[in-house]
Amino acid sequence: MTRKLIQPRTLKGFRDYLPSTMIPREWLIDTAKTVYRSFGFSPIDTPALEHAEILLGKGGDESDRQVYKFTRGKREVAMRFDLTVPLARFVAQHEHELGLPFKRYHIGPVWRGENTQRGRYREFMQCDFDTLGTVSTMADTETGLVIHELFQAMGFEKFAIHVNNRKILTGLLTGLELQDQAVPVLRALDKIDKIGPDKVRAEMAQTAGTTDAQSQAIVEFSQLSGTNAEVLEKVEPVVGGTESGSEGLSQLHEVLAGMAAGGVKDEHVHLDVSIARGLDYYTGTIYETFLGELPDIGSVCSGGRYDDLASTYTKSHIPGIGASLGLDRLLAAMEELGKIDAVATPAPVFVAFFSKERGNDYCALAMDLRRAGIGAELYPSARKLGEQLKYADRRGFQFAVIVGDSEWEAGTCQIKELATKQSHEVEQTGLVAKLRELLQ
Amino acid sequence: MTRKLIQPRTLKGFRDYLPSTMIPREWLIDTAKTVYRSFGFSPIDTPALEHAEILLGKGGDESDRQVYKFTRGKREVAMRFDLTVPLARFVAQHEHELGLPFKRYHIGPVWRGENTQRGRYREFMQCDFDTLGTVSTMADTETGLVIHELFQAMGFEKFAIHVNNRKILTGLLTGLELQDQAVPVLRALDKIDKIGPDKVRAEMAQTAGTTDAQSQAIVEFSQLSGTNAEVLEKVEPVVGGTESGSEGLSQLHEVLAGMAAGGVKDEHVHLDVSIARGLDYYTGTIYETFLGELPDIGSVCSGGRYDDLASTYTKSHIPGIGASLGLDRLLAAMEELGKIDAVATPAPVFVAFFSKERGNDYCALAMDLRRAGIGAELYPSARKLGEQLKYADRRGFQFAVIVGDSEWEAGTCQIKELATKQSHEVEQTGLVAKLRELLQ
Repeated sequence: MTRKLIQPRTLKGFRDYLPSTMIPREWLIDTAKTVYRSFGFSPIDTPALEHAEILLGKGGDESDRQVYKFTRGKREVAMRFDLTVPLARFVAQHEHELGLPFKRYHIGPVWRGENTQRGRYREFMQCDFDTLGTVSTMADTETGLVIHELFQAMGFEKFAIHVNNRKILTGLLTGLELQDQAVPVLRALDKIDKIGPDKVRAEMAQTAGTTDAQSQAIVEFSQLSGTNAEVLEKVEPVVGGTESGSEGLSQLHEVLAGMAAGGVKDEHVHLDVSIARGLDYYTGTIYETFLGELPDIGSVCSGGRYDDLASTYTKSHIPGIGASLGLDRLLAAMEELGKIDAVATPAPVFVAFFSKERGNDYCALAMDLRRAGIGAELYPSARKLGEQLKYADRRGFQFAVIVGDSEWEAGTCQIKELATKQSHEVEQTGLVAKLRELLQ
Repeated sequence: MTRKLIQPRTLKGFRDYLPSTMIPREWLIDTAKTVYRSFGFSPIDTPALEHAEILLGKGGDESDRQVYKFTRGKREVAMRFDLTVPLARFVAQHEHELGLPFKRYHIGPVWRGENTQRGRYREFMQCDFDTLGTVSTMADTETGLVIHELFQAMGFEKFAIHVNNRKILTGLLTGLELQDQAVPVLRALDKIDKIGPDKVRAEMAQTAGTTDAQSQAIVEFSQLSGTNAEVLEKVEPVVGGTESGSEGLSQLHEVLAGMAAGGVKDEHVHLDVSIARGLDYYTGTIYETFLGELPDIGSVCSGGRYDDLASTYTKSHIPGIGASLGLDRLLAAMEELGKIDAVATPAPVFVAFFSKERGNDYCALAMDLRRAGIGAELYPSARKLGEQLKYADRRGFQFAVIVGDSEWEAGTCQIKELATKQSHEVEQTGLVAKLRELLQ
């Protein structure tokens, strides 16, 4: 009797990571970790599943379609849809154990039941860092520095960190007597890159009741351009007269000076008074980051300052600032820019295997390489060289080490560079040294 | 109006990882990755959620209580409860793209709705590696070598890799004419360390109908002891006469010789004919690993060879061998053995911050350390030194760099070793060099 096979497939909106995609993903994650750690951010983790009430608040019906939520026994549980709500719960729960200020990074998957037609996945990694418990602008500056070091470490030469401060937008709206219409006004303004100024103005008129003069002033303000110093000079007279605007300007000055002191070149920081970002949440400095070669994919690292992270769970007032690296978007960008080699192995060296009788010699040779810090895969059984080299080529190994019977007798071996087909004959005792040289 | 707070808490059986636990967990994971990669295992990832049918098979009702399963739209979905079933689905789905042999590692969370009274968590990390598509015993040897390198890399000096081969157990049972009772016999035998030989024999009699002589022979066999060579010699006459037993013996000989060739000392490999492990699944070499100082916590790395991984999803016959590192158990062991420092920061250096006017100088100083590869946290705002040092002590920083006004003027700084309170005064230009020296 033949059993019926189950068709192997993933759920819609979910995907497997094969080695050729997973290797660069791990590299990106490791690079981000190294940068976060170098600034003293500590890793944390929280559960994938939480009480639905924790993740959605008490009236979370609206999010139902977006969030994976189910009943387990007597409990309503949900899968985390970001790492910010869990951070808020975490810091409220462990506040005294952690102490403030508290700097954490958190890298992990989140789940959203989004419409997959937009090309989005329902499972994706978030890669967040936050500094909690301080209102000092130095934390804002360091957030910008982390973003800068991330893109440097990932090997991007052309990138621009766009910085703004919500307070200057508040100053602008106060000056225009639109402070109570901030939400609809800024929601419309946030779309300016996508829909253009005319449609933004039309939306503002409709949702916020702006006059022609008001919406024109806002759009003109958002399009102020020039060097950072020039923009600051143009912004000053417009918003400097309000308390909020003046505070925002002074913070922007500090952040820009701090980033320069931290070694960031002007070309990498762009004061952009048009960015607003989820205004219900952010209250001060805000960041977005664009790749010079692929600006259209949108911001690949965004974040900002908030006044009160965890008010749902604690009476303690916890301000902070943080940002999130868009791993999936970056991975796609690196692919598009040809920054990813089609390699399906993390080891550079392939060791061919000819005769079972010599098996333990191959095994010992491969172990010597590994213990010398050179990753090496030994083909698991004796096969024809051609077949083994085909396997090695397909996987993307850089070098094949070939030792046939005559080489064993002579104590030598061949190193074949797989891309160029060039061969080097070396003494086995000199193999590690030669590979180190070739790998440099 | 005061809003009612939601009590911050995790679901029963779930936990947060605070930095002091997460830092060693990340270290363990990174160490495992480095070892896996050095052997040429490639990373993969699969979704947390899959079609319930994929994870549970068509008659998966029995697992219902163990598995997080729910209905989403028209679909039955489930959260993965291990990384082996997803691997089987993955390799069946991508077989032609991957090519065989295929070596992968996979590190990720899995979820089981287990009874939490046993002190188990419902969410835990698995850390698996497998070599698929080869029946060569060299893959068995290399699996043992990976385990050896893992424990070496994690800094354990006393550990024993227990190795056995299911085929010699089959040979034994065939000799006793119990081959058809293998499942209940070995299930009972697996408990010998926990319940002792008498209860094992009683269970065998009850569930497999063994005679006194049969169960005595099995228990005696399982307790054969001596050096590996001595045990092999004692096993030979008992099982060597059966085809299965003779094959198992020859594979054991090969694996032991191969591991010795790969540099594994005798003290780290223990031929243990009592281990059987989930016998419905394993068919050849099997491994368990015990810590010399904490044998009672059970095996911390286990696995073995299987004949056919993916028969639920494909007609292709995919044999392989793999093992799984017990991260949570190891973390608990390392804690118990005092191998974990109570450190809540990944950066060794704390930079104190005295005056806002000098803020950008502190910022530049911290950036210089980071760019020199020395992790450094800058306190985010000007505070009293005592308060800052208390923070630094609590976090577990090794060094505080202190630069007050007079030091700024003199171009010097103080390095304070936080554990010993010893101070070093150095030129700022020599700070990186001195810290590197102290960090060695």
